[in-house]
Amino acid sequence: MKTCFDCVPCLIRQMVDTARLCTSDDAVIEDALRQCLAEMARMDLGQSPPALGWRLYRLILDRCGATDPLRDMKAQSNRFALSLYPELKASVNRAPDPFAQAARLAIAGNIIDFGAHSSFSEARVRQSIAHALEAPLDPVELDALRHAAASARRILYLADNAGEIVLDKLLIERLGPEKVTVVVRGGPIINDATLEDARAAGLTGMVEVMDNGAPAAGTILDLCSPGLRQRFAAADLVIAKGQGNYETLSHALRPVYFLLKAKCPVVARSLRVKPGDIVLRRGGAA
Amino acid sequence: MKTCFDCVPCLIRQMVDTARLCTSDDAVIEDALRQCLAEMARMDLGQSPPALGWRLYRLILDRCGATDPLRDMKAQSNRFALSLYPELKASVNRAPDPFAQAARLAIAGNIIDFGAHSSFSEARVRQSIAHALEAPLDPVELDALRHAAASARRILYLADNAGEIVLDKLLIERLGPEKVTVVVRGGPIINDATLEDARAAGLTGMVEVMDNGAPAAGTILDLCSPGLRQRFAAADLVIAKGQGNYETLSHALRPVYFLLKAKCPVVARSLRVKPGDIVLRRGGAA
Repeated sequence: MKTCFDCVPCLIRQMVDTARLCTSDDAVIEDALRQCLAEMARMDLGQSPPALGWRLYRLILDRCGATDPLRDMKAQSNRFALSLYPELKASVNRAPDPFAQAARLAIAGNIIDFGAHSSFSEARVRQSIAHALEAPLDPVELDALRHAAASARRILYLADNAGEIVLDKLLIERLGPEKVTVVVRGGPIINDATLEDARAAGLTGMVEVMDNGAPAAGTILDLCSPGLRQRFAAADLVIAKGQGNYETLSHALRPVYFLLKAKCPVVARSLRVKPGDIVLRRGGAA
Repeated sequence: MKTCFDCVPCLIRQMVDTARLCTSDDAVIEDALRQCLAEMARMDLGQSPPALGWRLYRLILDRCGATDPLRDMKAQSNRFALSLYPELKASVNRAPDPFAQAARLAIAGNIIDFGAHSSFSEARVRQSIAHALEAPLDPVELDALRHAAASARRILYLADNAGEIVLDKLLIERLGPEKVTVVVRGGPIINDATLEDARAAGLTGMVEVMDNGAPAAGTILDLCSPGLRQRFAAADLVIAKGQGNYETLSHALRPVYFLLKAKCPVVARSLRVKPGDIVLRRGGAA
């Protein structure tokens, strides 16, 4: 997905939010914001929003002298999601269709997105779960995913955010953990999950986890490690969580199942859904 | 009011909206947006948002080859407000406190703000009217305005937007049209009222109307004509409608009665109200 004009003010808003997390020194924030605006004025909008976003994010962090301003928020969202996990797992086990229930809950977790919401809210997560269990979800796409997963031997699961990855465990258990490799980001970017979060979420003891080598949101293949690119090409099934992965892989050269909550009007329009809708959609060269 | 960091992405969003009104040529919009970002990177945030905004607006219009992209929308909002005017005037006449009713309706009209909302919506105006007639309005400030108006001989009424100025007539009738001079912008800026709108609204046949000489939102005294500055200093009472006038006159060296609907979180925070609240507040060197 290329960056649309509406993404520009949204990216700048995210950078203001990020700078405020890094420092309370307005002079530093102002300098960082000016650098961001100057950089944005020169950027290639043919790239995806995460491809622009990670450079702006690094610029803000460098200027503000920070490395991982959302580390505490990520830990908090992991802890909260872990506190919900037992009851959610029980709900999957007693659901008439456990696979569908798990998929819905994994999508619900995608609400934990600091890019879309500038704070972490337990109430918002609970609302997202309640909504995802009731909202329409394409039954044809769901069954296609179910069958693809049943026949796949190597499933690559591209995770998105901290906290969310705890809810991903519910779906991974249904996919067959022995077949799944979970991919996290190669370095801190917004509240995206890293290896540290995968450990906190208990994923590392359950499945193979690798980082993609890139400190960017989404999966920008050109930035990722050769190992990740090889796995991406060789997997029988790729599942990609969240807006960032959709924005960066919507035109991938292989089929990808996108599972996300559409949180912004641009992504919603691209998917032909409404903001707030839950989405399970096969894309890429599908 | 100085520009806060949150105003920066909001101003850029407004410029994207404006560029889209001027042209459907994405290459032209992209060029204009880049110029805007580069300009914004150099701007003095110690100025008010309208002081930055009008330069960005001119830049967008120059790049897109437009002069008044909201002219049709302004005419549409004037026509719609005129269609409501008879019933609203009747409601003032039969209200227990006609002055309060008129003030509430004038404030309700401030919802017609293309800077805050990227489109004109008749439903939104009707909702704003219904809300303004029920919402709390500081009775002390209202009485202070009532008494100031009764004793004033020269009232300067700084209008805000097209459409809204039709509802301003209801209050001006209560202030005493013979004492009132209505001030409109000196040139097209967003959907702010100009002399053309004052004529369409029927204000020119009712009170003295002058333009402020500046093609900017709000009232940036340094940009205004010497005549306006003289009137501003000499008036017994200054009434200023809308966010733009508040943003540019909140630290004026004379008392000003601000009447507006707080539409953005920054202005709401400055006024210690919630977004959506209606406000009647004496400010400046009050």
